[in-house]
Amino acid sequence: MAKKADKPKRPKAELPRGFHDTFGADVLERERMLSRIAEVYHLHGFDPLETPAIETVESLGKFLPDVDRPMGGVFGFQDDDESWVALRYDMTAPLARVAAQYRQDLPSPYRRYAMGPVWRNEKPGPGRFRQFFQCDADTVGTSTVVADAEICAMLADALQAAGIASEDFVIRINNRKVLNGILEEAGLQSDGEEARRGIALRAIDKLDRLGEGGVRALLGEGRRDESGDFTTGAELAGEQIDLLMGFVSAGRADGAATCARLRELVGASEQGIEGVQELETIAEFLDSQGYRAPLTVIDPSVVRGLAYYTGPVYEAELTFEITDEKGERRQFGSVAGGGRYDDLVMRFTGQRTPATGVSIGVDRLLAALRARGKSSESRAQGPVVILALERDRMAGYQTIATELRNAGIRAEVYMGGGTNLGKQLKYADKRHAPAAIIIGSQERENGTAQIKDLVLGTRLASEIESNEEWKAQPAQQEVGQSQILATIRAILERQSTP
Amino acid sequence: MAKKADKPKRPKAELPRGFHDTFGADVLERERMLSRIAEVYHLHGFDPLETPAIETVESLGKFLPDVDRPMGGVFGFQDDDESWVALRYDMTAPLARVAAQYRQDLPSPYRRYAMGPVWRNEKPGPGRFRQFFQCDADTVGTSTVVADAEICAMLADALQAAGIASEDFVIRINNRKVLNGILEEAGLQSDGEEARRGIALRAIDKLDRLGEGGVRALLGEGRRDESGDFTTGAELAGEQIDLLMGFVSAGRADGAATCARLRELVGASEQGIEGVQELETIAEFLDSQGYRAPLTVIDPSVVRGLAYYTGPVYEAELTFEITDEKGERRQFGSVAGGGRYDDLVMRFTGQRTPATGVSIGVDRLLAALRARGKSSESRAQGPVVILALERDRMAGYQTIATELRNAGIRAEVYMGGGTNLGKQLKYADKRHAPAAIIIGSQERENGTAQIKDLVLGTRLASEIESNEEWKAQPAQQEVGQSQILATIRAILERQSTP
Repeated sequence: MAKKADKPKRPKAELPRGFHDTFGADVLERERMLSRIAEVYHLHGFDPLETPAIETVESLGKFLPDVDRPMGGVFGFQDDDESWVALRYDMTAPLARVAAQYRQDLPSPYRRYAMGPVWRNEKPGPGRFRQFFQCDADTVGTSTVVADAEICAMLADALQAAGIASEDFVIRINNRKVLNGILEEAGLQSDGEEARRGIALRAIDKLDRLGEGGVRALLGEGRRDESGDFTTGAELAGEQIDLLMGFVSAGRADGAATCARLRELVGASEQGIEGVQELETIAEFLDSQGYRAPLTVIDPSVVRGLAYYTGPVYEAELTFEITDEKGERRQFGSVAGGGRYDDLVMRFTGQRTPATGVSIGVDRLLAALRARGKSSESRAQGPVVILALERDRMAGYQTIATELRNAGIRAEVYMGGGTNLGKQLKYADKRHAPAAIIIGSQERENGTAQIKDLVLGTRLASEIESNEEWKAQPAQQEVGQSQILATIRAILERQSTP
Repeated sequence: MAKKADKPKRPKAELPRGFHDTFGADVLERERMLSRIAEVYHLHGFDPLETPAIETVESLGKFLPDVDRPMGGVFGFQDDDESWVALRYDMTAPLARVAAQYRQDLPSPYRRYAMGPVWRNEKPGPGRFRQFFQCDADTVGTSTVVADAEICAMLADALQAAGIASEDFVIRINNRKVLNGILEEAGLQSDGEEARRGIALRAIDKLDRLGEGGVRALLGEGRRDESGDFTTGAELAGEQIDLLMGFVSAGRADGAATCARLRELVGASEQGIEGVQELETIAEFLDSQGYRAPLTVIDPSVVRGLAYYTGPVYEAELTFEITDEKGERRQFGSVAGGGRYDDLVMRFTGQRTPATGVSIGVDRLLAALRARGKSSESRAQGPVVILALERDRMAGYQTIATELRNAGIRAEVYMGGGTNLGKQLKYADKRHAPAAIIIGSQERENGTAQIKDLVLGTRLASEIESNEEWKAQPAQQEVGQSQILATIRAILERQSTP
């Protein structure tokens, strides 16, 4: 026993819960998507900004949707000088810090985009990770809602650049001011009503998922979900509930009709009337730029969970159906969202700095493209593999690899141990190599090389029985060594032709 | 006083010590460099891998250069289940974890590249940050030193792709086995000598910075630096010191001569002899592939601080001089380094898994290019700015922006408040806009636009005195609105012609 205890314990090769690795083709696919979205942002005059992963806890503030556990969702820890720091949980809080810190030097408005990982210290679930990618664009320092409308239009462009067809998504737009107007009418805007107001907002935000009955329950006495968990309700009176439900179902065939209906609902609330006017401006602008319904719609049921929004809020929803983990058909749902947050920079400066922006959930968008079967069809192709059958001829093999690379062809020499042909071919298969180049002692003496088309080879393998047939078929051919590049080129061309 | 205390304290708009923001053109410049390096890695058959920022502390292990404070250099914190996690401090530890975790599924050898930020909880200094970028390539699962040689050759290709001329850097290669052989000859390889051995290795590693005298002091009784701090020495005997110093100065005109000299020094040490043989193989391979001296050299003074290296070690050093913060001329120094680490994966699996790889310090490399004046000359150009002089005509301005974007020209409408021409032109200047498009009520009525070449305008501004002259000069012209795109195109073309 004593001896066993002396032996150092081996660490487990695993990640903390809720984190994951991304390999090969998936990394490339996300990079391609990010660069396409960035291109759209850049073309619209937005500049890149990169802030570090770590911020002070004071800078980040407490703006996560989960109002009940304000710091619960954050990875925070003490720096060596005892001050508390944390991993950023979104790109907006760091932007507010930057806008305040560099306000003398930055152009105003400051238009920036940012992409990178964010971290949430939340319970992980299927497809729900604690580190994920966001790709944001924001305009800081402008109060005109044309900036909000522009971001909605740009979001539509970005989603299409990322590969989502225009008929497959809708950008839904609402305005917190209208909602506040309704809350005012419902008597929920006064001090002391914060808790009930919060529950009501979150309830409305769940309309998609819970349906009208579920939301009504949450606005009233509360709701027990399928698992048996009970969520406390806002305990509103019947007419308050009717007013709020009337609001979320105020959507009409077009923006103008919806705005007219909202005007009725907000009554005399000044804020409500202002909000409706802003929605009208946004709808007109989007119409004039060719982003009319059904690409963008004014939708009163959009709330967005975050407490800091002060005006227009918007989200992009994918409208096609997918089969979820439980085998059920459902709409894919939201992949991007944002809105106006006029008070975030003020936290630092004391001066109101109007701002608006959007965040695209890149990982969700990738998942959507895969579900839709529209991610890059051909998985990234592996390198041409030059087998290493004579260990003392590595330099010669490498020279062939260099020749291929100089022609822009991905290539590598087998670097594993041993000279076993079968093992090396298996490796080439595992790499998804398009072709293998085989030069043993015999080929070397003849000045030739065997070139194996591995795609064709795999297809033929099942059909061919004898060794002779194998040799006769065209998936493998012997060529002079000066013909290697030309032969590989021909194979790659053949493979890329459907 | 009581009232003041009630007021919530404003957070400071600042980052924790040792972190920094990266803006606009600098972000784009790093992205370009990363993608060029990645392209080289990919062409050589390496696949991308992306691991999360957070790993378990057990996985990461204690492999930082600072052996005296093994976990001191890491940002670690407790997860919500009490287990300790930490931000990755390099890309090698996560790779070892991945190689162990997925060993059944990954091809062997597994060749991967990775790029992204790493975090070091160290004292920040000028140009020394606590988050910085690395760009790594590794081959896991091969014991042949041809893999090491290949990575050295690829590193040379990558540095050139990143913009460093081949005469501006050298890749210096050594072998820990040779060093171990010398240490054996010096009687420092036995148990109980770990501390002295560690000090000796770190001392040799500082030859560049401290010179022969400084290293000798550290090998002997210790060294007091300019600040007065004293570093304890290894307290070796005179002949031990001579042996070690003979080793670091064993470099000769070419690889073969250096290897011959090393053979003399390692005496009968088996490990030493093996190490020299490996260096010979590497030198031969690099010679045969056209990477001979002075591009790559066998240099016995290369140690690399990390304790986990088991064979060849290599680093890329920039050889041109720069003026440092103190105004002194000095060589830029190391921008990349790596080596063979055959035992890292074994920590997890119990089975030896040979591996070798390199890490490029991307931020240092960018700093070098800037010091060399070779970073992209033309800072990223700002968007064409369409001034918004009539607030109720935003849709019309936006239509012009869309027309320019559709032609691939970066463009934006001024989104700030007010209709002040001067303020909006100042904004355009701050954005480094190549041109501004001005349509006020008069131009609108005439169906025209004023187009201002801001680059030419800035140049002419100092030379022109009167308002009339200003109007007459060619930096501003009035065109029909259908001619806006063509006019902007002509201006951009003129500006891009030297």
